[in-house]
Amino acid sequence: MNKLEQQLVFLREIDRLKAVTRQSPLLDGSRRENSAEHSWHLAMYALVLSEYACGSINAHRVMQMLLLHDIVEIDVGDFPIHGGTSSEIQTKQEVRAAERIFGLLPQPQADALLGLWQEFERAETEDAKFAKALDRFQPLLTNVFTDGGTWKESGVSLEQVLARYGPVIARGAPQLWVVCERWVARHFQEK
Amino acid sequence: MNKLEQQLVFLREIDRLKAVTRQSPLLDGSRRENSAEHSWHLAMYALVLSEYACGSINAHRVMQMLLLHDIVEIDVGDFPIHGGTSSEIQTKQEVRAAERIFGLLPQPQADALLGLWQEFERAETEDAKFAKALDRFQPLLTNVFTDGGTWKESGVSLEQVLARYGPVIARGAPQLWVVCERWVARHFQEK
Repeated sequence: MNKLEQQLVFLREIDRLKAVTRQSPLLDGSRRENSAEHSWHLAMYALVLSEYACGSINAHRVMQMLLLHDIVEIDVGDFPIHGGTSSEIQTKQEVRAAERIFGLLPQPQADALLGLWQEFERAETEDAKFAKALDRFQPLLTNVFTDGGTWKESGVSLEQVLARYGPVIARGAPQLWVVCERWVARHFQEK
Repeated sequence: MNKLEQQLVFLREIDRLKAVTRQSPLLDGSRRENSAEHSWHLAMYALVLSEYACGSINAHRVMQMLLLHDIVEIDVGDFPIHGGTSSEIQTKQEVRAAERIFGLLPQPQADALLGLWQEFERAETEDAKFAKALDRFQPLLTNVFTDGGTWKESGVSLEQVLARYGPVIARGAPQLWVVCERWVARHFQEK
């Protein structure tokens, strides 16, 4: 296979992300969101909200990370934030999936995209910390906009919400977390 | 409303793009694609295939254009390439939609995103020409991968395919068009 053919095999394979369903609903409540449209929405969050990043970021890299961060779900599905899967098993499965799927690309592109995915997962660089923060911020916002969404479904408490979203959002986008805290407090007060 | 609130109104509004259905199917044939996941897929095309751009491009701008190019469809729906809507009416409706939706953002961000959308539509800059080429290339590839897809459905001829996809792909990504010509010829030969 030549280089372009390898690239097209990859682009064909990732079409399957459109069939991976997440827990979060669309805002009109008509159905659950899939991971491809979720990734699109997150990239738009990065486009619009980059000024709220804590550190000095490269907006293009953040956008790329968000576009590809869920591609592993083609093999392993979505692990819901309020689910109970052991994080070690999850990590192993996701690493294997990343190697298989990004490995469809020619070199050095395969390594470059795998590297971006690993950087996102490690969440140590400024770019990855902000990308991770947005990946928590969007579902939180969805729950606020849909009167509790997955929090209600999973019987999640105020303390659990603060613990599961807070550190990640506060680290990458502290100004956004200040607003989140207000929404979350109001939501649980009204219940 | 403060600046962040305006930005969140915009990000909430564009969730509706997930409910806009296109003519193209998913590659597994299970359902038609929506415009949000299509935009995600195109941004991934830009990430992987930027080396095939005809001119010298800014990959970040191309990606941004592809992420937002279909947002007007929230108001006007998708105009299929093989449909018969007059292009003048379509253009007017889309311009009004772009002004309304990007106008939800604070300034100067509203103008910046509207400007990117207008640049994509005019297809005069190198960035826009390449983005437009990818926006034709992905549906063509979908039709090749699904044994004719929307060409079969709409009874489109070889000449129509060459005329509707050729100029745009050849102008922005000539190397990709060379490959397309081969696929298209083979597809219609086998019919």
